[in-house]
Amino acid sequence: MTNEELYLSVTLKAWKTNIERADKAFFNLTPEQLLKEIAPEKNRLIYLWGHLTAVHDAMLPLLGFGQRLHPEFDEPFLSNPDKALPNMPSAEEVRKSWDEVNRKLLDGFAELRAADWLQKHTAVSEEDFAKDPLRNRLAILLSRTNHLSYHLGQVALVAK
Amino acid sequence: MTNEELYLSVTLKAWKTNIERADKAFFNLTPEQLLKEIAPEKNRLIYLWGHLTAVHDAMLPLLGFGQRLHPEFDEPFLSNPDKALPNMPSAEEVRKSWDEVNRKLLDGFAELRAADWLQKHTAVSEEDFAKDPLRNRLAILLSRTNHLSYHLGQVALVAK
Repeated sequence: MTNEELYLSVTLKAWKTNIERADKAFFNLTPEQLLKEIAPEKNRLIYLWGHLTAVHDAMLPLLGFGQRLHPEFDEPFLSNPDKALPNMPSAEEVRKSWDEVNRKLLDGFAELRAADWLQKHTAVSEEDFAKDPLRNRLAILLSRTNHLSYHLGQVALVAK
Repeated sequence: MTNEELYLSVTLKAWKTNIERADKAFFNLTPEQLLKEIAPEKNRLIYLWGHLTAVHDAMLPLLGFGQRLHPEFDEPFLSNPDKALPNMPSAEEVRKSWDEVNRKLLDGFAELRAADWLQKHTAVSEEDFAKDPLRNRLAILLSRTNHLSYHLGQVALVAK
């Protein structure tokens, strides 16, 4: 392995470890348990799960892996706060979409060589990328791994 | 910049961004506010701040940057849960130590070239590292960045 490949392997391993943690935290909960709030008057677990799914889904076009699979998750889980809408996807729909999105991301990851991660992500222009070459795919992967950890810290408050 | 240097720059930027977030979250709180719990019967903010300081302090020997600066933080913030001990360091002591530890880490980071991050960290043996070359300094940096995010997600529940 080259040094850049080692860098990538460590980074991908951190992503996978956090996805596994999330799987473990969410999969064992019943639909009723998923309606629990992480703290009084804060987001419910189901909302965080849907929110993470929507954010991961949005990584697909950002990384150049194609269209989003579940743009309909934005309204209930991204543009609106929890409990703002009368209806939201069921626990079963969230679970299925979560799996589907993360699988499609892994398929995309498998197609990229280490150097490809240093190319610009799709939300930055050529001009801006020339000024700041750190606005690359790798930066998306790291920030989304951190975002996942951030919410896992919240999930841990109830999931025990 | 070489590709491995770009990898490192993105990774260090994620660390720094999260340290800045923590600074912002903790620095504006009064000693009284730091005694708030993140959720009923959960850790207090001051405990999380001390805990993060202890974990970052332990990175110094792990990354080969020398002795720990505050091993006395382990008992109140690592080996024991919150509220288990009658006395703990004051908010002012935590703030000072947090700054000191993170500054020393940055000094250490500045001394490492990209390839140095791929060397083993000090808690893994030569034999184990030969079997799994991903147990390197970089893995420590990524896991501690994620650990910081994890607790920042909890701090956000009260710090607003």
